Amino acid sequence: MLNEWDHQFIEKAFEEAKNSFNTGGLPIGAALANSNKLISTGHNQRVQAGDPIAHGEMDCLRKAGRQKTYRDMTLYTSLSPCMMCAGTIVQFKIPRVVINDTQNFGGNEKFLREHGVEIVDVAHPASIELMARFISENPSLWNEDIME
Amino acid sequence: MLNEWDHQFIEKAFEEAKNSFNTGGLPIGAALANSNKLISTGHNQRVQAGDPIAHGEMDCLRKAGRQKTYRDMTLYTSLSPCMMCAGTIVQFKIPRVVINDTQNFGGNEKFLREHGVEIVDVAHPASIELMARFISENPSLWNEDIME
Repeated sequence: MLNEWDHQFIEKAFEEAKNSFNTGGLPIGAALANSNKLISTGHNQRVQAGDPIAHGEMDCLRKAGRQKTYRDMTLYTSLSPCMMCAGTIVQFKIPRVVINDTQNFGGNEKFLREHGVEIVDVAHPASIELMARFISENPSLWNEDIME
Repeated sequence: MLNEWDHQFIEKAFEEAKNSFNTGGLPIGAALANSNKLISTGHNQRVQAGDPIAHGEMDCLRKAGRQKTYRDMTLYTSLSPCMMCAGTIVQFKIPRVVINDTQNFGGNEKFLREHGVEIVDVAHPASIELMARFISENPSLWNEDIME
Protein backbone atom coordinates (compact mmCIF):
# COMPACT_ATOMS: atom_id res chain seq x y z
CA MET A 1 0.00 0.00 0.00
CA LEU A 2 2.92 2.36 0.72
CA ASN A 3 5.34 3.25 -2.04
CA GLU A 4 9.01 4.14 -1.79
CA TRP A 5 8.51 7.88 -1.24
CA ASP A 6 5.45 7.67 1.04
CA HIS A 7 7.70 7.13 4.07
CA GLN A 8 9.50 10.46 3.75
CA PHE A 9 6.23 12.41 3.30
CA ILE A 10 4.66 10.65 6.29
CA GLU A 11 7.60 11.97 8.30
CA LYS A 12 7.14 15.48 6.79
CA ALA A 13 3.55 15.52 8.08
CA PHE A 14 4.75 14.37 11.50
CA GLU A 15 7.54 17.01 11.52
CA GLU A 16 4.90 19.69 10.90
CA ALA A 17 2.86 18.29 13.79
CA LYS A 18 5.92 18.50 16.06
CA ASN A 19 6.69 22.04 14.85
CA SER A 20 3.17 23.10 15.76
CA PHE A 21 3.39 21.39 19.15
CA ASN A 22 6.69 23.18 19.85
CA THR A 23 5.11 26.57 19.14
CA GLY A 24 2.13 25.96 21.43
CA GLY A 25 -0.31 24.82 18.79
CA LEU A 26 -2.32 21.74 17.99
CA PRO A 27 0.14 19.05 16.85
CA ILE A 28 -1.44 18.19 13.51
CA GLY A 29 0.55 18.45 10.29
CA ALA A 30 0.17 17.60 6.63
CA ALA A 31 2.09 17.32 3.38
CA LEU A 32 0.95 17.35 -0.24
CA ALA A 33 2.95 15.56 -2.92
CA ASN A 34 2.69 14.75 -6.59
CA SER A 35 4.25 11.27 -6.78
CA ASN A 36 7.78 11.79 -5.41
CA LYS A 37 7.67 15.61 -5.60
CA LEU A 38 6.78 17.52 -2.44
CA ILE A 39 4.34 20.37 -3.20
CA SER A 40 3.75 21.86 0.27
CA THR A 41 3.55 21.19 3.98
CA GLY A 42 1.49 22.85 6.71
CA HIS A 43 0.14 22.55 10.22
CA ASN A 44 -2.84 23.57 12.33
CA GLN A 45 -2.85 27.37 12.84
CA ARG A 46 -5.69 27.80 15.34
CA VAL A 47 -3.40 28.95 18.12
CA GLN A 48 -0.57 30.47 16.08
CA ALA A 49 -2.74 32.51 13.67
CA GLY A 50 -6.12 32.45 15.44
CA ASP A 51 -7.45 30.78 12.31
CA PRO A 52 -10.22 28.21 12.84
CA ILE A 53 -10.23 26.95 9.24
CA ALA A 54 -6.47 26.27 9.18
CA HIS A 55 -6.41 22.63 10.15
CA GLY A 56 -3.19 20.90 9.10
CA GLU A 57 -4.58 19.70 5.78
CA MET A 58 -6.13 23.11 4.98
CA ASP A 59 -2.94 25.04 5.81
CA CYS A 60 -1.01 22.65 3.56
CA LEU A 61 -3.48 23.10 0.67
CA ARG A 62 -3.42 26.87 1.12
CA LYS A 63 0.37 26.87 0.93
CA ALA A 64 0.25 24.80 -2.27
CA GLY A 65 -1.47 27.78 -3.89
CA ARG A 66 -3.56 27.52 -7.04
CA GLN A 67 -3.32 24.10 -8.69
CA LYS A 68 -5.08 23.16 -11.89
CA THR A 69 -5.63 19.61 -10.67
CA TYR A 70 -4.85 17.35 -7.71
CA ARG A 71 -5.58 14.10 -9.51
CA ASP A 72 -2.01 12.77 -9.31
CA MET A 73 -1.45 13.92 -5.74
CA THR A 74 -1.43 12.33 -2.30
CA LEU A 75 -2.28 14.21 0.89
CA TYR A 76 -0.41 13.02 3.98
CA THR A 77 -1.85 13.94 7.36
CA SER A 78 -0.76 13.20 10.90
CA LEU A 79 -4.40 12.85 12.08
CA SER A 80 -7.54 11.57 10.39
CA PRO A 81 -9.43 14.36 8.55
CA CYS A 82 -12.39 16.09 10.19
CA MET A 83 -15.54 16.75 8.12
CA MET A 84 -14.17 20.11 6.90
CA CYS A 85 -10.98 18.51 5.65
CA ALA A 86 -12.78 15.44 4.29
CA GLY A 87 -15.18 17.66 2.34
CA THR A 88 -12.21 19.58 0.98
CA ILE A 89 -10.44 16.39 -0.14
CA VAL A 90 -13.59 15.38 -2.05
CA GLN A 91 -14.12 18.85 -3.53
CA PHE A 92 -10.47 19.09 -4.62
CA LYS A 93 -10.66 15.55 -6.04
CA ILE A 94 -7.56 14.41 -4.18
CA PRO A 95 -7.52 10.68 -4.94
CA ARG A 96 -5.34 9.35 -2.09
CA VAL A 97 -4.90 10.22 1.59
CA VAL A 98 -2.27 8.68 3.87
CA ILE A 99 -3.19 9.00 7.55
CA ASN A 100 -0.76 8.56 10.44
CA ASP A 101 -3.35 8.35 13.20
CA THR A 102 -6.98 7.19 13.11
CA GLN A 103 -7.01 6.29 16.81
CA ASN A 104 -7.21 9.70 18.50
CA PHE A 105 -9.71 11.01 15.94
CA GLY A 106 -11.50 9.44 13.02
CA GLY A 107 -14.76 8.45 11.45
CA ASN A 108 -14.67 10.21 8.10
CA GLU A 109 -12.70 7.46 6.34
CA LYS A 110 -16.02 5.91 5.24
CA PHE A 111 -17.24 9.18 3.70
CA LEU A 112 -13.94 9.54 1.86
CA ARG A 113 -13.96 5.97 0.57
CA GLU A 114 -17.58 6.35 -0.58
CA HIS A 115 -16.38 9.30 -2.66
CA GLY A 116 -13.66 7.21 -4.28
CA VAL A 117 -10.72 8.34 -2.14
CA GLU A 118 -8.08 5.71 -1.36
CA ILE A 119 -7.25 5.75 2.35
CA VAL A 120 -4.01 4.36 3.75
CA ASP A 121 -3.95 4.07 7.55
CA VAL A 122 -0.31 3.73 8.55
CA ALA A 123 -0.72 3.76 12.36
CA HIS A 124 2.44 5.86 12.89
CA PRO A 125 3.38 5.29 16.56
CA ALA A 126 5.02 8.68 17.20
CA SER A 127 2.07 10.61 15.69
CA ILE A 128 -0.40 8.64 17.81
CA GLU A 129 1.65 9.18 20.96
CA LEU A 130 2.09 12.94 20.40
CA MET A 131 -1.63 13.48 19.70
CA ALA A 132 -2.69 11.40 22.71
CA ARG A 133 -0.36 13.44 24.92
CA PHE A 134 -1.70 16.74 23.55
CA ILE A 135 -5.37 15.75 24.04
CA SER A 136 -4.62 14.59 27.57
CA GLU A 137 -2.81 17.84 28.47
CA ASN A 138 -5.05 20.29 26.52
CA PRO A 139 -8.61 18.91 26.42
CA SER A 140 -10.32 22.30 26.06
CA LEU A 141 -8.16 23.41 23.14
CA TRP A 142 -8.67 20.06 21.44
CA ASN A 143 -12.45 20.28 21.93
CA GLU A 144 -12.48 23.81 20.55
CA ASP A 145 -10.61 22.67 17.44
CA ILE A 146 -13.13 19.94 16.64
CA MET A 147 -16.09 22.07 17.82
CA GLU A 148 -17.11 19.69 20.59
CA MET B 1 -38.45 31.37 6.87
CA LEU B 2 -36.64 34.74 6.82
CA ASN B 3 -36.54 36.87 9.94
CA GLU B 4 -36.31 40.64 10.25
CA TRP B 5 -32.50 40.83 10.15
CA ASP B 6 -31.89 38.15 7.52
CA HIS B 7 -32.49 40.66 4.74
CA GLN B 8 -29.60 42.93 5.71
CA PHE B 9 -27.15 40.01 6.03
CA ILE B 10 -28.25 38.58 2.67
CA GLU B 11 -27.25 41.95 1.22
CA LYS B 12 -23.92 41.87 3.13
CA ALA B 13 -23.07 38.55 1.45
CA PHE B 14 -24.02 40.00 -1.93
CA GLU B 15 -21.96 43.16 -1.27
CA GLU B 16 -18.92 40.96 -0.60
CA ALA B 17 -19.59 39.13 -3.87
CA LYS B 18 -19.68 42.46 -5.72
CA ASN B 19 -16.51 43.64 -3.96
CA SER B 20 -14.72 40.49 -5.12
CA PHE B 21 -16.03 40.90 -8.66
CA ASN B 22 -14.82 44.51 -8.73
CA THR B 23 -11.29 43.44 -7.74
CA GLY B 24 -11.08 40.74 -10.43
CA GLY B 25 -12.04 37.80 -8.25
CA LEU B 26 -14.78 35.21 -8.12
CA PRO B 27 -18.00 37.01 -7.09
CA ILE B 28 -18.92 34.89 -4.10
CA GLY B 29 -19.40 36.42 -0.66
CA ALA B 30 -20.59 35.42 2.77
CA ALA B 31 -21.60 36.80 6.15
CA LEU B 32 -21.77 35.19 9.59
CA ALA B 33 -24.19 36.48 12.21
CA ASN B 34 -25.35 35.58 15.68
CA SER B 35 -29.05 36.49 15.56
CA ASN B 36 -29.03 40.21 14.70
CA LYS B 37 -25.30 40.72 15.41
CA LEU B 38 -22.92 40.59 12.45
CA ILE B 39 -19.78 38.60 13.30
CA SER B 40 -17.82 38.74 10.02
CA THR B 41 -18.00 38.95 6.26
CA GLY B 42 -15.69 37.59 3.56
CA HIS B 43 -15.34 36.71 -0.09
CA ASN B 44 -13.56 34.27 -2.37
CA GLN B 45 -9.79 34.95 -2.35
CA ARG B 46 -8.55 32.58 -5.08
CA VAL B 47 -7.53 35.41 -7.40
CA GLN B 48 -6.79 38.12 -4.85
CA ALA B 49 -4.68 36.03 -2.46
CA GLY B 50 -3.93 32.95 -4.58
CA ASP B 51 -5.67 30.96 -1.87
CA PRO B 52 -7.62 27.91 -3.07
CA ILE B 53 -9.27 27.18 0.29
CA ALA B 54 -10.61 30.73 0.68
CA HIS B 55 -14.06 30.32 -0.75
CA GLY B 56 -16.47 33.04 0.40
CA GLU B 57 -17.76 31.01 3.34
CA MET B 58 -14.25 29.95 4.43
CA ASP B 59 -12.85 33.50 4.25
CA CYS B 60 -15.79 34.68 6.35
CA LEU B 61 -15.24 31.94 8.96
CA ARG B 62 -11.50 32.69 9.05
CA LYS B 63 -12.23 36.37 9.67
CA ALA B 64 -14.58 35.46 12.52
CA GLY B 65 -11.55 34.05 14.32
CA ARG B 66 -11.79 31.55 17.14
CA GLN B 67 -15.35 30.98 18.32
CA LYS B 68 -16.31 28.66 21.14
CA THR B 69 -19.54 27.71 19.39
CA TYR B 70 -21.56 28.50 16.26
CA ARG B 71 -24.79 26.99 17.51
CA ASP B 72 -26.73 30.28 17.53
CA MET B 73 -25.30 31.50 14.24
CA THR B 74 -26.46 31.74 10.65
CA LEU B 75 -24.11 31.67 7.68
CA TYR B 76 -25.26 33.71 4.69
CA THR B 77 -23.72 32.94 1.32
CA SER B 78 -24.24 34.36 -2.14
CA LEU B 79 -23.77 30.91 -3.75
CA SER B 80 -24.64 27.39 -2.64
CA PRO B 81 -21.78 25.77 -0.67
CA CYS B 82 -19.36 23.39 -2.37
CA MET B 83 -18.38 20.14 -0.61
CA MET B 84 -15.47 21.87 1.21
CA CYS B 85 -17.77 24.56 2.59
CA ALA B 86 -20.59 22.09 3.29
CA GLY B 87 -18.21 19.86 5.24
CA THR B 88 -17.03 22.90 7.18
CA ILE B 89 -20.59 23.93 8.05
CA VAL B 90 -21.24 20.43 9.43
CA GLN B 91 -17.91 20.29 11.30
CA PHE B 92 -18.48 23.74 12.82
CA LYS B 93 -22.07 22.77 13.72
CA ILE B 94 -23.53 25.85 12.08
CA PRO B 95 -27.27 25.16 12.32
CA ARG B 96 -28.63 27.45 9.59
CA VAL B 97 -27.44 28.53 6.14
CA VAL B 98 -29.17 31.16 4.00
CA ILE B 99 -28.26 30.82 0.30
CA ASN B 100 -28.81 33.52 -2.32
CA ASP B 101 -28.23 31.32 -5.37
CA THR B 102 -28.70 27.59 -5.86
CA GLN B 103 -29.16 27.91 -9.63
CA ASN B 104 -25.60 28.52 -10.83
CA PHE B 105 -24.16 25.94 -8.42
CA GLY B 106 -25.69 23.53 -5.96
CA GLY B 107 -26.23 19.97 -4.95
CA ASN B 108 -24.92 19.90 -1.39
CA GLU B 109 -28.16 21.12 0.19
CA LYS B 110 -29.20 17.46 0.68
CA PHE B 111 -25.95 16.61 2.50
CA LEU B 112 -26.42 19.63 4.74
CA ARG B 113 -30.06 18.83 5.52
CA GLU B 114 -29.13 15.22 6.29
CA HIS B 115 -26.72 16.60 8.87
CA GLY B 116 -29.44 18.69 10.49
CA VAL B 117 -28.64 22.02 8.89
CA GLU B 118 -31.60 24.28 8.07
CA ILE B 119 -31.28 25.60 4.51
CA VAL B 120 -33.08 28.71 3.31
CA ASP B 121 -32.93 29.26 -0.46
CA VAL B 122 -33.83 32.89 -1.07
CA ALA B 123 -33.29 33.02 -4.87
CA HIS B 124 -31.75 36.51 -4.74
CA PRO B 125 -32.06 37.84 -8.32
CA ALA B 126 -28.98 40.10 -8.30
CA SER B 127 -26.73 37.34 -6.88
CA ILE B 128 -27.96 34.89 -9.51
CA GLU B 129 -27.44 37.41 -12.30
CA LEU B 130 -23.91 38.38 -11.19
CA MET B 131 -22.79 34.76 -10.85
CA ALA B 132 -24.26 33.78 -14.22
CA ARG B 133 -22.45 36.70 -15.85
CA PHE B 134 -19.14 35.75 -14.21
CA ILE B 135 -19.38 32.08 -15.25
CA SER B 136 -20.24 33.09 -18.80
CA GLU B 137 -17.31 35.50 -19.02
CA ASN B 138 -14.72 33.46 -17.03
CA PRO B 139 -15.43 29.76 -17.52
CA SER B 140 -11.85 28.59 -16.91
CA LEU B 141 -11.50 30.50 -13.63
CA TRP B 142 -14.86 29.21 -12.47
CA ASN B 143 -13.92 25.62 -13.36
CA GLU B 144 -10.61 26.00 -11.51
CA ASP B 145 -12.44 27.20 -8.41
CA ILE B 146 -14.74 24.18 -8.28
CA MET B 147 -11.95 21.82 -9.49
CA GLU B 148 -13.77 20.81 -12.67
